[in-house]
Parts: sequence; structure tokens; C-alpha cells
Amino acid sequence: MSTLPMVLSRRLRPSPFEKRARENGASLFTLYNKMVMPLTIRSSEEDYQHLLEHVQLWDVACERQVEIIGPDALRLTELITPRDISTLAIGQGKYAPLCDENGGIINDPIILRIAEDRFWLSIADSDVNLWVKGTAYGRGFDVRVFEPDVSPLAIQGPKADDLMAEVVGEHTRDIRFFWFIDEMVAGTPVKIARSGWSGQGGFEVYLQDSTKGDDLWDIFWEAGQKFNVRAGTPNLIERIETGLKSYGSDMTIESNPFESGLERYMDLDKEAEYMSREALQTIAKSGPEKRLVNLIIEGTPLGSMRSVWSVIDDAGDSIGDVTSQAFSPRFNSGIAMAIIKASHAGIGSKVRVDANSETRMATVCDASWSADPE
Amino acid sequence: MSTLPMVLSRRLRPSPFEKRARENGASLFTLYNKMVMPLTIRSSEEDYQHLLEHVQLWDVACERQVEIIGPDALRLTELITPRDISTLAIGQGKYAPLCDENGGIINDPIILRIAEDRFWLSIADSDVNLWVKGTAYGRGFDVRVFEPDVSPLAIQGPKADDLMAEVVGEHTRDIRFFWFIDEMVAGTPVKIARSGWSGQGGFEVYLQDSTKGDDLWDIFWEAGQKFNVRAGTPNLIERIETGLKSYGSDMTIESNPFESGLERYMDLDKEAEYMSREALQTIAKSGPEKRLVNLIIEGTPLGSMRSVWSVIDDAGDSIGDVTSQAFSPRFNSGIAMAIIKASHAGIGSKVRVDANSETRMATVCDASWSADPE
Repeated sequence: MSTLPMVLSRRLRPSPFEKRARENGASLFTLYNKMVMPLTIRSSEEDYQHLLEHVQLWDVACERQVEIIGPDALRLTELITPRDISTLAIGQGKYAPLCDENGGIINDPIILRIAEDRFWLSIADSDVNLWVKGTAYGRGFDVRVFEPDVSPLAIQGPKADDLMAEVVGEHTRDIRFFWFIDEMVAGTPVKIARSGWSGQGGFEVYLQDSTKGDDLWDIFWEAGQKFNVRAGTPNLIERIETGLKSYGSDMTIESNPFESGLERYMDLDKEAEYMSREALQTIAKSGPEKRLVNLIIEGTPLGSMRSVWSVIDDAGDSIGDVTSQAFSPRFNSGIAMAIIKASHAGIGSKVRVDANSETRMATVCDASWSADPE
Repeated sequence: MSTLPMVLSRRLRPSPFEKRARENGASLFTLYNKMVMPLTIRSSEEDYQHLLEHVQLWDVACERQVEIIGPDALRLTELITPRDISTLAIGQGKYAPLCDENGGIINDPIILRIAEDRFWLSIADSDVNLWVKGTAYGRGFDVRVFEPDVSPLAIQGPKADDLMAEVVGEHTRDIRFFWFIDEMVAGTPVKIARSGWSGQGGFEVYLQDSTKGDDLWDIFWEAGQKFNVRAGTPNLIERIETGLKSYGSDMTIESNPFESGLERYMDLDKEAEYMSREALQTIAKSGPEKRLVNLIIEGTPLGSMRSVWSVIDDAGDSIGDVTSQAFSPRFNSGIAMAIIKASHAGIGSKVRVDANSETRMATVCDASWSADPE
């Protein structure tokens, strides 16, 4: 891994779980929403294997919340996303791209409905609060938009249900995907959602008092001993295998939900007003020019990617870039996401990748990593 | 310095000058606007001494630009700041707090007027483009708001004028403070402004093609040899001595320009509409509850600050927090900025600072570090 020593300062916020994550082995970090986030405990590969078998506590406090509250909260939340929010129940969450008037992706949060007129956007890495505040001001909406003191701790892995049942109760097994309940844990109120940035199952526990990070961590840590709990982090290998896209890497404000493969998270004909309607309906008709695809890259592990890895066609012309990549134990080959010309994005399409000064053959695969175009 | 190893990824953008800065000794880093920025070359103290005597090249590409262009560009730029922009000439810049409808500081850029209907906000660390885009959309303004490919390289120190005259010409000595001119340097168009985040004088060169970073660096580097040029960075010691405030540390969206000491950068009675008018005029009448002050801290160097350093009064009650601090060679004592209750913010006021498990006496000073209240 290519790393640099980063100086901590007041501008870069500590997480309520940072102390415990570091005590329990966090070794490599990133900054996300100006907050420190652990990225590796032992190694990507070792963390991955453990995640697939046991249960991990992840410091994902950097998944900040943007709260929208007030009489116009629903109207504003509808305005910023092409997804239909009117059907979102209190206690339910929905993954939803936020799109500007050009269809560009501002962020891809889970939107939680906390009350009739109160939403949380549980965000990826961009200052969504500023965009929503500006929009609300400009439209004269009667809402308040701010970042509340809310920090998620993720409990991820196949034993997450058992651990949650042990700590909070058997009823937590019945929480449906992306729904959440209110509980008291470690003497502090939390929301427990069935969600998290892996395909291994589990929960995100929304701590609502940043002074209680140690307490919340400790109660899951102690109960987790019999489940072989470890500190973990969002895992690059696992999240690419699972197909989870990272905002800032795999999509940006230059991307739209069609090219990013988020079609099923849009309701373009929804009744409510939303600012990206015209732009997205136009793209829907013409089709996107580029597509984010899965690639299987042939050969041995390539190491980490710092410079741009171009994707090239038979003629040697660049048709796009790799956006994320890792070596997959599951497929025993390189796996990647790449944004490439739509003309080359068909399943089974053969391309080449210019990676760290060598060229590798690669094949476009579907969401389940099959290269069979049928 | 307290540091953590940070993993580089596509989400964290490289600077066009990163390669040269690292080749020339950059050793500690931060992330700023999701871009890598060097913070230290040899040591804070050694970099400081050199900056006070010679000339340095600073990679401050992370000072991103937000471009506002179109028929409503002036109206929008006026709307987002309490500073009068109507008098800003083409070729001139102004330091200006951006304030929301509550008077909260969104950022503190230099606003450059590029053309009649075209502005650049040269920003500190927050996604200003999102806030301005949201505001423009909400108001239905006819503008485009985006981040152009513009990366500043700072030339700072007492020999900066000689170096710039050598590379670009004697006429650059006549550039007035915060004004800028268009030039071709190293075969690429740049804007050269007399500005920069130090009190030692110098320029910021706005590179408009991120593929030309090495070329621009090299021409100043080679010509700078006879001036004892080195790579440098914004220097913590120097910027506190000079009184330059860092957005995210010394002020945030929770601060207003009165408590942050930015009164002279506001024109509360300006003619144009601006969204913070009502909130700021109210605070102007009542006075702020807190103030950002300079503190001289007694005793030996305290090391770096990671946890909160509280400021406490005679009764032992917390009256605020230190926001930035260093040990000053100039004063041979600790220097700090702190946000404290306005009641204790008088020049000469004595307070205590709880720093890294010890308590130190401290004195409130004015902008020139005098504790004489007259």
C-alpha cells in the first residue's frame, strides 16, 4: 500500500471510536468527511478472511449524517434525489443517489426517515450539508439542515446477528434490510439499522452522543469475544467483490446514475418535484456514453493503484480508467471497477489495462462476476 | 507531531506539484479539499527559519477554485458574502468570508474577478462548490458553478519578488497586494497574484493545466537556486505569528465573522442582497458571545495538540478551547489562537490553558501580540 504520514490537527476530526480502533490494531487510515477512518487492521487479505467467517466492529463514524428537519423536509428531500421518498416509512432507510440539475451525482447516502418531517442522510465523502443548505435557502424552504452528533459503528460479518441478539435481544434478528429501531445500549440511545458496507450481513449502530464511543464499543467487544470478534474496516477486496461503489473513486459529480449502474435506485416518473428530472430523462432516452463495469484482470496481484490505470481497446486507444481494484481470493485474479465507453461495456467484452507499467488482459463481467453474455 | 499512515486512493486527489514536493523533501502531509498537501519539509522550525530569510515553493494546489460564470455571476457572488463585491475590479482579489443565512462561516476564500461575469473563489477546506451550486439552483440564477483545472503554486519569502522578477520580469514587482496578472510561464498560461498564506510576502501562481505541474515548478526551482530556494509549506508557526486563521480549525460553520475577528472584511450595509444580512446585523448590535483571541502561553514547548485543550478562568471553569498553537521562536514562548467567552477576551486578560495534562498560564494579546490593553 502506498501511504503518507498525515499530521492530525483540529481540522481533521477524531472519531468517537478512534481510540478503541487503534487499541485493537488499526494500522492504516484514510480521511473521509474530514474525519479519520481506519482502513486496515492486520492486512486487507487477513481482514477479509476474518470478515467472511466471524464478526467485526468497524469505526465508520466518518459516515456523517445530514439532518433535514421541518415542515418542508419531505419536499426538500424529494427535490435532491430521483428516488421516490414519499413511500419511505418512519423507521426505514433507502439507498438513494443525490443528483444535481445536470444529473451529476453529489453523493449516494442512505436516507433514513426518522420522523414524518425529519430525515437523516447517511453520507459518503462530500459536504452534502452545504449543498442541501444552499438549495433550501435558495428555495426559501422552511427546514433546518445541519450535521447532528451521530456516529455509526458497524457490526459486520456472518456472526453479526448472533452478537446483536446477545447484546440487544432476539428481536433484532427481525430487523428488515435498511430498516432501523431505537434502543438503549451501554446506557445511551442508539438507532440500530440492518445495513453496512459489506455483503456479509450486519448492522450499523447510530451513536447519538460522541462522548460514549468507548462504552458502545466495549459492550459489543466484550459480548463478541465468544464470536471471535475483531476490529475491522470497510474492506477493499470484499466491497469490490460485493459490488459496492465508493463515491469519489467509482463515481463523482461528473458521473450520472445511469453510467454508475444505479438505475434501480431511481424513480424517474415519481410524482414529487426533483431537480435532476429533465437531465436524467434525457440521458434515459439517449443512454449513457460511459459505463461503470466490473473487470476480471488476468494474472498475478498488481499491488495498489496510485497513478491512473487506463483501459485500452484493441486499437490501443484509451476507452476509460480503472476506478478501484484489488486481488480477489474468491476468483484468484484481479478484480476492478472501471469507467469505460459504453460501446465496450458489454458483458464478455475483452479489454486491456495499463497497470503499474505492465499491460494485462481483462474481461467485462456482470454484477455477479460472470463474463457469460447470455 | 502526531501522525498516522494514510492510504492514497483515487478518492484523494494528487496535486500537480506532489511529485516535485516529495522529491524535494516533503515529509509530512495533510488532506485538504480531498487533495494531498505537504505540511512539513525538514521540520516546522527549520522550514520557518528558512521562510523568514529566503524563498520557498509551496504546493498549495489543494487551495481549489470554485468558478462562477454567467449573467448572474455577480449577483450570486454578492449573495454569498457580506463583503462588497461590486467594487472588485477585473484583475483584483478580495479576502471575503462566505456566510450562510445564520451568519455561520462556510469558508473564507480570496474572491478573484476574472472577467465582468466570471469569478474564482480560491477556497479553504470545504466543498464550497456544492453550497454555491445549491444556492444558484434554488434561486434559479443563470450561472455555471464548477471546479476548474486550476492549481496554485505559492512563491513565498522575502526573496520572492527577486525570483519572480527573474522568471517573469521586473514588471511583476508592481503587482499590488491581492491583484493578479496573466502571463505565460514555462509555456503555459498562469495568473500571478500577490498573495499567499504567510506574512513574508510573495505570490501565488495559478496553474491552469494540471499536466504542467513539473514544468512550472522546475522553472522557478532552477531560477531560484541563486536565492537559496527550497520546497516549503504553509508553516504553522509563521501563520500563527502572522495571525492567519485556518478554516476548520480556528473557525467553522459554527463561527461568525465577529467572533472570528473578520469585521474588517464585511460591508454590512452594502447595496447588494446577501443572505447573511439579517443575522449579521443582529450580531453586530448585540456583540458576539465568543471571540477568537491570540494567547501567549508561558513556559517551554508543549508539543502538538491532538485532544482538546481547554481554556479556563480563575474559578476553574472552561471558557473555551485552543484552536491552533505552536512554539514561537520570535517570542520564545507558546503562541495560540483560542475561541473564548467574550467576557474574558480583553487584551491583557489572564487565563489558564489545560494542555497535554499540564496547566499553563496564558495572556490574551492583540493582533500584534501585545498584551498592553491601552
